Amino acid sequence: MLADRYFASDAAQRQIARELYETVKDMPLICPHGHVDPRLFADPNFQFSTPVELLIIPDHYIFRMMYSQGIALESLGISRKDGSAVEQDHRKIWQTICDHWYLMRGTPSYIWLRDELRDVFGIDAKMNSANAQAIYSAIEAKLRQPDFRPRRLFERFRIEVLATTDAATDRLEQHQAIRDSGWPGRIIPTFRPDAVVNLDTENWINHIRQLSEVSGISVVNYRSFIQALEQRRDFFRSMGATASDHAAQSAYTTDLSEAEAEAIFQRALADRAAPEDAARFTGHMLIEMARMSSEDGLVMQLHIGSYRNHNPLIFERFGRDMGADIPTSSEFTRNLKPLLDRFGNQPNLTLILFNLDETNYGRELAPLAGHYPILRLGPPWWFFDSLVGMRHYLDSVVETAGLYNTAGFNDDTRAFPSIPARHDVWRRASADWLAGLLSRGVIDEEDAYDMIADMAYHLAKSTYKLSPDAMSR
Amino acid sequence: MLADRYFASDAAQRQIARELYETVKDMPLICPHGHVDPRLFADPNFQFSTPVELLIIPDHYIFRMMYSQGIALESLGISRKDGSAVEQDHRKIWQTICDHWYLMRGTPSYIWLRDELRDVFGIDAKMNSANAQAIYSAIEAKLRQPDFRPRRLFERFRIEVLATTDAATDRLEQHQAIRDSGWPGRIIPTFRPDAVVNLDTENWINHIRQLSEVSGISVVNYRSFIQALEQRRDFFRSMGATASDHAAQSAYTTDLSEAEAEAIFQRALADRAAPEDAARFTGHMLIEMARMSSEDGLVMQLHIGSYRNHNPLIFERFGRDMGADIPTSSEFTRNLKPLLDRFGNQPNLTLILFNLDETNYGRELAPLAGHYPILRLGPPWWFFDSLVGMRHYLDSVVETAGLYNTAGFNDDTRAFPSIPARHDVWRRASADWLAGLLSRGVIDEEDAYDMIADMAYHLAKSTYKLSPDAMSR
Amino acid sequence: MLADRYFASDAAQRQIARELYETVKDMPLICPHGHVDPRLFADPNFQFSTPVELLIIPDHYIFRMMYSQGIALESLGISRKDGSAVEQDHRKIWQTICDHWYLMRGTPSYIWLRDELRDVFGIDAKMNSANAQAIYSAIEAKLRQPDFRPRRLFERFRIEVLATTDAATDRLEQHQAIRDSGWPGRIIPTFRPDAVVNLDTENWINHIRQLSEVSGISVVNYRSFIQALEQRRDFFRSMGATASDHAAQSAYTTDLSEAEAEAIFQRALADRAAPEDAARFTGHMLIEMARMSSEDGLVMQLHIGSYRNHNPLIFERFGRDMGADIPTSSEFTRNLKPLLDRFGNQPNLTLILFNLDETNYGRELAPLAGHYPILRLGPPWWFFDSLVGMRHYLDSVVETAGLYNTAGFNDDTRAFPSIPARHDVWRRASADWLAGLLSRGVIDEEDAYDMIADMAYHLAKSTYKLSPDAMSR
Repeated sequence: MLADRYFASDAAQRQIARELYETVKDMPLICPHGHVDPRLFADPNFQFSTPVELLIIPDHYIFRMMYSQGIALESLGISRKDGSAVEQDHRKIWQTICDHWYLMRGTPSYIWLRDELRDVFGIDAKMNSANAQAIYSAIEAKLRQPDFRPRRLFERFRIEVLATTDAATDRLEQHQAIRDSGWPGRIIPTFRPDAVVNLDTENWINHIRQLSEVSGISVVNYRSFIQALEQRRDFFRSMGATASDHAAQSAYTTDLSEAEAEAIFQRALADRAAPEDAARFTGHMLIEMARMSSEDGLVMQLHIGSYRNHNPLIFERFGRDMGADIPTSSEFTRNLKPLLDRFGNQPNLTLILFNLDETNYGRELAPLAGHYPILRLGPPWWFFDSLVGMRHYLDSVVETAGLYNTAGFNDDTRAFPSIPARHDVWRRASADWLAGLLSRGVIDEEDAYDMIADMAYHLAKSTYKLSPDAMSR
Repeated sequence: MLADRYFASDAAQRQIARELYETVKDMPLICPHGHVDPRLFADPNFQFSTPVELLIIPDHYIFRMMYSQGIALESLGISRKDGSAVEQDHRKIWQTICDHWYLMRGTPSYIWLRDELRDVFGIDAKMNSANAQAIYSAIEAKLRQPDFRPRRLFERFRIEVLATTDAATDRLEQHQAIRDSGWPGRIIPTFRPDAVVNLDTENWINHIRQLSEVSGISVVNYRSFIQALEQRRDFFRSMGATASDHAAQSAYTTDLSEAEAEAIFQRALADRAAPEDAARFTGHMLIEMARMSSEDGLVMQLHIGSYRNHNPLIFERFGRDMGADIPTSSEFTRNLKPLLDRFGNQPNLTLILFNLDETNYGRELAPLAGHYPILRLGPPWWFFDSLVGMRHYLDSVVETAGLYNTAGFNDDTRAFPSIPARHDVWRRASADWLAGLLSRGVIDEEDAYDMIADMAYHLAKSTYKLSPDAMSR
Repeated sequence: MLADRYFASDAAQRQIARELYETVKDMPLICPHGHVDPRLFADPNFQFSTPVELLIIPDHYIFRMMYSQGIALESLGISRKDGSAVEQDHRKIWQTICDHWYLMRGTPSYIWLRDELRDVFGIDAKMNSANAQAIYSAIEAKLRQPDFRPRRLFERFRIEVLATTDAATDRLEQHQAIRDSGWPGRIIPTFRPDAVVNLDTENWINHIRQLSEVSGISVVNYRSFIQALEQRRDFFRSMGATASDHAAQSAYTTDLSEAEAEAIFQRALADRAAPEDAARFTGHMLIEMARMSSEDGLVMQLHIGSYRNHNPLIFERFGRDMGADIPTSSEFTRNLKPLLDRFGNQPNLTLILFNLDETNYGRELAPLAGHYPILRLGPPWWFFDSLVGMRHYLDSVVETAGLYNTAGFNDDTRAFPSIPARHDVWRRASADWLAGLLSRGVIDEEDAYDMIADMAYHLAKSTYKLSPDAMSR
């Protein structure tokens, strides 16, 4: 059962899935997009603190579910902005989580944490009220061992490359420290300029001031803003970055004249932005970023579709990333056209699209990616990074876009020790999906073995320009 | 085959599904939302009339399909508003239905009626031209027997509680008669104030007059309107109601000032409503109803997404509920925000959402329900109360919202004798879906047995506050 | 494997699927909608030229995928509008295709071409770099044989009727030549007036001039335009047409007064169309076409949802139908209402709806088709004419609309020799889907055998009025 988890119940398909999976399960992990803190690797002696600090407090998948069933975030140790007291007893928090762990049944978090406890921490037990304290103690004991320091785990996990996500204003000091340390683990930054590009960012003006500082270019107008961004991209590239990342509420793009862009930028500097300014400027900057990518070669990622901070009470009390971001429907055919009109046929450009509206996989995204040379489709994201989500994605995308216009897998996580479990789910889901195609005669064995290796490893590596190596054929 | 119907073809999954199903198939039925006429139970000697009166004339699923293939509604005995003649010979109508029964192949109605004929009436034959009259006779004979009176069937069906749906102006005399009769069957009303809340209801002013009468509060302005509604809610609660129900074309909510609400209400009273008044008032009243529910504890249900009476010819000739209601796409993330901003975190409130746009299960509804404490997701509704609909729903919802933010099953039917068949389809579909998770190692046996009991029984009971009993763990 | 291709992996379901498929695999092919050139059949000695001319250059599914991975269309022999040089060496083009054939893995084109090579050309090999030239030679040799002339293939394929798609201004000279030749193959035209109805067609005024010429009616105003269209419909009917076909970006319909229609038409004639004129006129003409169909009995087809020529660079360089058409989301409930209000209940009218937004199958299309007598749902179209597309379609449509409000299959192809492979995919997918229903006890054997025959043959024939024969019962 354990060996065949996530494979089809049908014996014939399961047998094929197992054989396909066997060929990739030990391949190195390519992690081209995620949110792990580079600090973990800068200090060779970094040690994770408590199980709750490691597994619960940073995981909005888990605490949002608890909150949805009436458990106060304060009781789970989530910090309040006003500094008022929250639960500090991590054993008590862990007990609360275990008491309500049944709420997670059937969710990806449930299987990730189960697989992680078993395969990383050697704890093969189901979390419940009775064993909560024993499990806590067992994890705690492991975390004190040298083998559970991040660098050691990185090596044990066979991670070939791990990309972090970093603000345009980040000096990448942690990345520099990793390099200086001589440790050979490949940790690379990703250029994410949202805070300076999206005019409605809280304290935008402070981010612009920081941008001036770190770039050495005084950002006083649109032109110097562009120059400062180009300077930062060069710096990120010098530190190993191969990609940029951009988040927007929609895929809206628009090609402003320099005069219009300048006018909006000046209004923003003067804190007198008009209602539509932020959306139009972001839409324009996406095209401008595509222009830069076509010149400097950074792979461009675009994540759209989330209505951030939907619950004002939670936002006021706890801040952002508290599990209160809600997807919206999305549109690409019209929204992305201005960008594609200018750069869709560009040879030296890759744009990877991520989206939170599954209906768009088959309707707009696969047809777009199956035509435009610059486009690749990112793996199922966020709520859809799941067994059903992966099946829906593959079923919806591959018939039209082919496999080779997808970007492989990325784990997109800040939970470092969960990385192997997440890749394993993808590899198993991919093997099972291919086993379905093979058992129904859609593809043959040769195809299936090539495709599983591409899905598990090569597609991510080549899409993100992480090496010159080719697909498996 | 019969014993394993609706389970996966794969032997391993089927075996597990059967075992799970066995543990719940005889559990009592919880029917927290539906449209059965309480009159059936008020008179202990109530007898169903003909098979056509029982099975065809009230079932728009069946006669809409016949109509779509060119069979006149008049020939099926559907009454015309103008009183002109329609077919009166029920044996002839039944023959027409049986002659065209093949049109229903693969639909839920086809399996509900088949299962109902076999399990309730003991008729194990497939309806066709040849046996039409024999089946008619067999049903007719059963209906004359005392065992087929509604109260006896209620007991035989093991219904623990049955909620009806009743206008705000209903005096609940049938419910009172049931109570007075001493019969112990639990039949409870549900408060549905649509006719007084939606200003574009036909003859709205008459409904308001009735509201004044039954409440004893003269409804002359917005404030007295609210008071009258509160009076009715108290009365419904005194008669056993645990829930209210609200229908709207969209999930649009808006928080009007009392002055604005008053102005709209006055325009409506004077029959001078402005074009947007009805939609804005409904949007406002949904928030107001949430406010009342957070005070009096009635579980709030919201059904959205149907474009009612789409075919004007049919509406003019036959009236409403004639199978001509067509779904529309829906949006919740933005539309429901004003309500959630005010009451989304309220401890004493449950809001169950129903929707006719499957794409919304995974995209907006599951993320919303997986965060906001007040939200639960209703089971697949109307056209989606089907085997495929249930699979889509569970696949789309549980990974993100978890099982425990769903509201279990409700049959939502006016066809009383079809209730066991409908619950059986849900229980089998649930068992099969869980068997899929178990056979693929997503959940374990303990999870599966708990979850099937919750899906079959406990979730509906607890969500609708029908008893203080907890989930099965 | 070969014999059971596209059937479920589960042995029980596969066995049933095979038995169902066996009963229909040799039934004649009904091809009521497609784009095969009638010229192929007008000349009894017509011979296909090279494998590339036959299989690659007309197939935008294939060359769009190649283009999406950076292969220039020029290198695939696609003609440029400016007449500049493109690759002329067809063996070199074929080599390029075979070198990159892995890109097509998992797509419908991959299995269509594989099945076509094997079953039509007797070539049972997987296209790759090594065997490219040998396969080319083998196809080329076959194409020179008399048995591979279109008329011989038509007979060998057991095509009972093949409908072409023809402009309203077409004189149908090829169809006349086929008739005159005495060859008994039934090739019929389809009336497609898009170029004269959609005012934004390139060179619309020239199309109107042609319409005047071929109809003998001088089109100088809206009324003569309508008369000319009616004349053409009569002519098409006299040449065997049973259907018309209409393409629009959306399902928007609107009922203009004759004065409004006239005003728009005059503006268009004067080349002074207002911004909304084209959309409103198309929306109006769809209703007008329904009116004509209700009088002359032509089955009306409506294909909506494609954003044509999305990539301006490709359009300027290569023209239309270059794989750069991208779907958009669609809406029917509101858009189609004006047409349905007038003709939805009309006895002598059939309107078949096609759509590129899968979410609409279950949400709007199935409920509409399950009510309105005139509506039938076309099979999954374009990107969705695939194994997954068919499963999604059947799962989404049949529970609500029933099978008998669907229009059966049509291959919609310009690639004549791929027709048997396409029908075979549909027949296998249908058999497998029915096997799923039967193995789960949703339908019984009698149902399944009737339904597979209807899906494979009778539904298309009866929906398109290709004979008076009834469904299989």
